[in-house]
Amino acid sequence: MSLHGLAAYIVPSADPHQSEYVADHWKSRAWISGFTGSAGTAVITADMAGLWTDFRYYLIAENQLQGSGYELFKVGMPGVLEYPEWLMNNLQPGSKVGLDGRLFSVGQIRKLAKLFSQREIELVTNFDLIEKCWTGRPAMPDAPVFEHDVKFAGASRAEKLAKLREKMGNADFHFVPMLDDIAWLYNLRGSDVECNPVFYAYSVVGKEVAWLFMDGEKLPDQLRQQLNQDGILVKHYNDLTAFLQQIPEGQSILIDLATVNNQNYNAIRSSSIREGENLVAELKGIKNPTEIANLKQTMAKDGAALVKLFRWLEKTLAEREVLETEVAEVLQGYRRNMAHYFGDSFDAIVGYNSNGAIVHYRPEHGSCASIAPQGMLLLDSGGQYLDGTTDITRTIALSEPSDMQKTDFTLVLKGVINLTIARFPKGTNGVQLDTLARSPLWQGHANFGHGVGHGVGFFLNVHEGPQGFSPLVTSPRAAKAMEPGMVTSNEPGIYRVGQYGIRTENLILCVEDKDNEFGNFYRFETLTLFPIDLRLIKKEMLSEAECQWLDGYHGECFEKISPYLNEEEKDWLRQKCGKV
Amino acid sequence: MSLHGLAAYIVPSADPHQSEYVADHWKSRAWISGFTGSAGTAVITADMAGLWTDFRYYLIAENQLQGSGYELFKVGMPGVLEYPEWLMNNLQPGSKVGLDGRLFSVGQIRKLAKLFSQREIELVTNFDLIEKCWTGRPAMPDAPVFEHDVKFAGASRAEKLAKLREKMGNADFHFVPMLDDIAWLYNLRGSDVECNPVFYAYSVVGKEVAWLFMDGEKLPDQLRQQLNQDGILVKHYNDLTAFLQQIPEGQSILIDLATVNNQNYNAIRSSSIREGENLVAELKGIKNPTEIANLKQTMAKDGAALVKLFRWLEKTLAEREVLETEVAEVLQGYRRNMAHYFGDSFDAIVGYNSNGAIVHYRPEHGSCASIAPQGMLLLDSGGQYLDGTTDITRTIALSEPSDMQKTDFTLVLKGVINLTIARFPKGTNGVQLDTLARSPLWQGHANFGHGVGHGVGFFLNVHEGPQGFSPLVTSPRAAKAMEPGMVTSNEPGIYRVGQYGIRTENLILCVEDKDNEFGNFYRFETLTLFPIDLRLIKKEMLSEAECQWLDGYHGECFEKISPYLNEEEKDWLRQKCGKV
Repeated sequence: MSLHGLAAYIVPSADPHQSEYVADHWKSRAWISGFTGSAGTAVITADMAGLWTDFRYYLIAENQLQGSGYELFKVGMPGVLEYPEWLMNNLQPGSKVGLDGRLFSVGQIRKLAKLFSQREIELVTNFDLIEKCWTGRPAMPDAPVFEHDVKFAGASRAEKLAKLREKMGNADFHFVPMLDDIAWLYNLRGSDVECNPVFYAYSVVGKEVAWLFMDGEKLPDQLRQQLNQDGILVKHYNDLTAFLQQIPEGQSILIDLATVNNQNYNAIRSSSIREGENLVAELKGIKNPTEIANLKQTMAKDGAALVKLFRWLEKTLAEREVLETEVAEVLQGYRRNMAHYFGDSFDAIVGYNSNGAIVHYRPEHGSCASIAPQGMLLLDSGGQYLDGTTDITRTIALSEPSDMQKTDFTLVLKGVINLTIARFPKGTNGVQLDTLARSPLWQGHANFGHGVGHGVGFFLNVHEGPQGFSPLVTSPRAAKAMEPGMVTSNEPGIYRVGQYGIRTENLILCVEDKDNEFGNFYRFETLTLFPIDLRLIKKEMLSEAECQWLDGYHGECFEKISPYLNEEEKDWLRQKCGKV
Repeated sequence: MSLHGLAAYIVPSADPHQSEYVADHWKSRAWISGFTGSAGTAVITADMAGLWTDFRYYLIAENQLQGSGYELFKVGMPGVLEYPEWLMNNLQPGSKVGLDGRLFSVGQIRKLAKLFSQREIELVTNFDLIEKCWTGRPAMPDAPVFEHDVKFAGASRAEKLAKLREKMGNADFHFVPMLDDIAWLYNLRGSDVECNPVFYAYSVVGKEVAWLFMDGEKLPDQLRQQLNQDGILVKHYNDLTAFLQQIPEGQSILIDLATVNNQNYNAIRSSSIREGENLVAELKGIKNPTEIANLKQTMAKDGAALVKLFRWLEKTLAEREVLETEVAEVLQGYRRNMAHYFGDSFDAIVGYNSNGAIVHYRPEHGSCASIAPQGMLLLDSGGQYLDGTTDITRTIALSEPSDMQKTDFTLVLKGVINLTIARFPKGTNGVQLDTLARSPLWQGHANFGHGVGHGVGFFLNVHEGPQGFSPLVTSPRAAKAMEPGMVTSNEPGIYRVGQYGIRTENLILCVEDKDNEFGNFYRFETLTLFPIDLRLIKKEMLSEAECQWLDGYHGECFEKISPYLNEEEKDWLRQKCGKV
């Protein structure tokens, strides 16, 4: 840093594709700080090292940063500045701040540069200081890439490209930098990122031909030939920059400023740039009928795995304590036995009592809690199946719950149901809908620090755009209108630090409801199948409509999961699916 | 236009102060198009004249533009472009578009210029073509300015300036261009704009001295001396530009891009500009305890005026039909008799049957409907009192209502109550809160095209910022967090074009509720006092909590309004305030 005259250097958690989860090769923020959460930014100055992260990771980051010399900045807490503002307040005018422009979107860079210019701080965007310092840095991943069968995907590469080209209008090219967009568009999958079946690549879609920039070694010859036949040419990952530089004058390329990184953006002739939306995300977010039909099957399998897990847990806890990590392992074993299982969709959160209050807790061998038949357990987990991605949270009582626990659990359940049974007109966005799951908690003077839900991929990333439920008007996902075919999580919670955490999460599908003079109304269908712990519910807090929904849901759970169970498991499930 | 080489000229409804309602002198868009609504933009090209307006004014504009040659563009309808996009699609690259930069905020100009630059259309911002064409243009208003007594305002000019200077931090000046902000800050009022007790002025607040740019003739000598004693110097309205130009190098002026007009902005040396919030709006929006106590009294008076009006209407309709305009006039008469009445806060909307479906309907002599004792009547009105501004809507049945009318009315009522009884944590914004009044309507497959509510001034504009309830994440008012002391309208509705309109509107005050580990919770108190028509309510659609609220509210209405009534009126009110 001092060699380059930098007063500060910023290390984000991103890779060059704006991925939320990245390959080990790109975990530079984790390497430099020791904090392994999915979201956070490290900032190093001559005399300070700081780590900025949000609500979900306060407790984890506190633990991981102990003794590291890093100062923890809890974003969202009163008086805590975000790192750009902190830099503005702590650097001298005329200072230089460096970063690796590949790891920031153009949108982010512009915001930073504008902010810094107010204090005459210069932003230098072409410094990769990490590569030189990081000895033993993991190589770029080389896992093989395979085809995602159209019987699961529901639409061929050619059909998807045709739809995309229609949306491109008169643009000559569309730049597709995000890994899950590329995987979806070409019906390809990989294993480059843990729990995310994607592979490192860029793509540019032209009017006739599409280019896929990736390590060609990962592709079986036959698949490469099929891609060729579909008009998709494979080039080397590193050839992208030259390709972007050579887009001829007078030809236009449509890019999304929020996802294109600064280095790629700078490679393009400015007169060729057409700013626009991420068109692939728009298409991918609307699940097709085949995907939806597959996903409904997958939910029953996934529910059956949970039946086996919770039944095992009940029996085992009668005999001995169980480590949180063991719960995750046993559950993974049950999921692995299900047809078309590919892996977990994220590291299971198994939070016993106070660990349940750590929103993104992940049990580790050697440090995790041992579960006794006393208190509560929060289990948030999901599977990647060729026929769909799941993400489900259930909180169960392991002993007679307290009145406060039951009240909290029932408030969360009211939140889940209120959003589930909502009707709303076309155009309704994720901020508006977030309120529906949140306001029943507010009535009980409770709240939670995360959004109500995120989009979920189809055998793809468990978090995907374009939509989401969030209270933040500045969140592009929350600003997006909900559309039929979108699959989103519905997961309010109540977290009492040091005591327990409660979250109930279902995936819900947006469907058409009714058209009239006031608009086209939509509603949700619940996809996730697993009963909600009746022992934790205060029936007197539920309205008649809420009770009706729950009884109906439990009936559906039993009907759809039981074909995957033996008689003893069916008996167990029947009992859990009783009336409220 | 052709003399100046302009391909198009834009005439907005604004004045140089970004007022929603303007003095006749500034009604250039109404003059050029014939459309008199408060919101709309005229665009004139060589071969087209267009008028763009929103949902609220579709029907009014259709009527007023008939035969004018103007094409009506209904903003918000599918496929209808907003005027900037329309110009981009219809003008040749290289064209010049003109406007009067005084009538647009810097923010608006920047957005327009950025958009137009994509098609190489040039925006020229210094053309006032109206002044030359408008013969008989009304002069600038010259109504006298008077002091708003501190016994009503609750804080002196000096106290308000001290608070503002604290908020200004290290900025040398703050520019205050909005008329209601100026009136509030200096405890002054005027009559320059119909129904808005403001006067045309600009202000600049320095660290020791404040300048008021206005027509000094409007100020009584004594008041001018008092202003002087408070460190407020009066200069001529036209001296502002020179003042802004002469801000010395190295001194900073804090401005809000959304409210400063382009001409004023351009007068300021760019190195002096500090972009920020409209600080006066922030202060003014939080009503002080004196204002709140006054307002509560005013609501009882205003409710009493409505008792007299509706009782008169009931009696009169038993004998003869009544014109919509007569209702407005009789109501004004009753309000005028109340202490401290100053005028109406807007032209009353008296909408009989299908006229009730026209959201901003205003009955006119000669064309308005004659009310018979059959159907429904929507009455939206308000008064300006020295001790507060009111804005209330009630819809009443004039004969036995239909099942659909009762269902619609009850859905609207559920919306009103759901927001009224909500609790919510500090930081909750107007998009989130809008949902609370809207979702009960959605459940009945109904909706409405306006926001749930707007801020209301204290003996000031009936629409004011900084907050508001709206579904639009891009609305700065909706993005604002609700704070204790804010007064906002709560006015969902259902409008059946050609049949009837239903709206119920109360003003609600945000107050503190409870603090705990999940946040500082707030709730609302209803300020408006007048019963809701029991004849239109389907009790079986209301929850127990909703019935309880309504019964309690009716009890409060009777208790607080009756001191202003004679015995016969009390009997009438007692009957209207029955249990649901």
